[in-house]
Amino acid sequence: MIRTIGIDPGSRFTGYGIVEGDGHNLKYIHHGTIRLPASRSFPERLKMIFEQLGAAISEYKPVSMAVEEVFFAKNVKSALSLGQARGAVLLAGVSAGLTIHEYSALRIKQAVAGYGRASKDQVAGMIQRIFRIDAQIEPNAADALAVALCHLNTHSSNRRWEALNKP
Amino acid sequence: MIRTIGIDPGSRFTGYGIVEGDGHNLKYIHHGTIRLPASRSFPERLKMIFEQLGAAISEYKPVSMAVEEVFFAKNVKSALSLGQARGAVLLAGVSAGLTIHEYSALRIKQAVAGYGRASKDQVAGMIQRIFRIDAQIEPNAADALAVALCHLNTHSSNRRWEALNKP
Repeated sequence: MIRTIGIDPGSRFTGYGIVEGDGHNLKYIHHGTIRLPASRSFPERLKMIFEQLGAAISEYKPVSMAVEEVFFAKNVKSALSLGQARGAVLLAGVSAGLTIHEYSALRIKQAVAGYGRASKDQVAGMIQRIFRIDAQIEPNAADALAVALCHLNTHSSNRRWEALNKP
Repeated sequence: MIRTIGIDPGSRFTGYGIVEGDGHNLKYIHHGTIRLPASRSFPERLKMIFEQLGAAISEYKPVSMAVEEVFFAKNVKSALSLGQARGAVLLAGVSAGLTIHEYSALRIKQAVAGYGRASKDQVAGMIQRIFRIDAQIEPNAADALAVALCHLNTHSSNRRWEALNKP
């Protein structure tokens, strides 16, 4: 079983979700959202992301981190703040010795909903069904669980492929 | 005497410079450039920035960090990478308990060269003269010393103002 933490970075809300699986079984472990008050300075918010993700990593001990690849943003200003939040997220992972994996939005949606044009609500609905979570999941945490699921699928299909191709 | 570390964040080169002053005296302490090999993954580079700045902060013990404010970037892609590097820089400062201060490029150039349209070379030349540094300074480290100087000037003129206005 591989345990992974998926993250949806943001400067107001950073969602995270921890799941494990081996290609046949999928198991939901935990999810949460780090709320970053607008009243705090940007550096303080980065510290909150870094420390709270660090705490979740120490508690749940994932071996890898999965994050959505970003190519677009509304504008340069939002790209800069997203980049800063993302920097704190990646640093929390790499400081704890996790391997870091990035997936495009298209690939994440395909992994979760079967097609790349699924809406945010469809992704969240699928995540609830796949992991049998009854309560509604906060959207950033749902996106974090989606990228974690994408990583488990990719990782276990790579392993199946390697197993099939062993001499 | 206030000791401060100025930083010029970047995903290939991050410059830093440590200076101290009290409004009358300025003293150069140290400068350096963190070179981030393109062969390393982005998360590894963020870790290098965070750890090497952390080491410089422990060694030279500045009480504050000064960083250029950024509003523009060539495009969204470069804003994202700059944002990530900047996130690692701010996190290194706030984790070490430093106060963080941001200054616009205009204000930094005015502080160093007396006018806001000074070229990079003019800023570097002024920095060498002000701090009496003989050897040529790597451009990112020169920019880092410039933002540190801007902070010292602003901080000490604030203090002079407060002193003048004491009842």
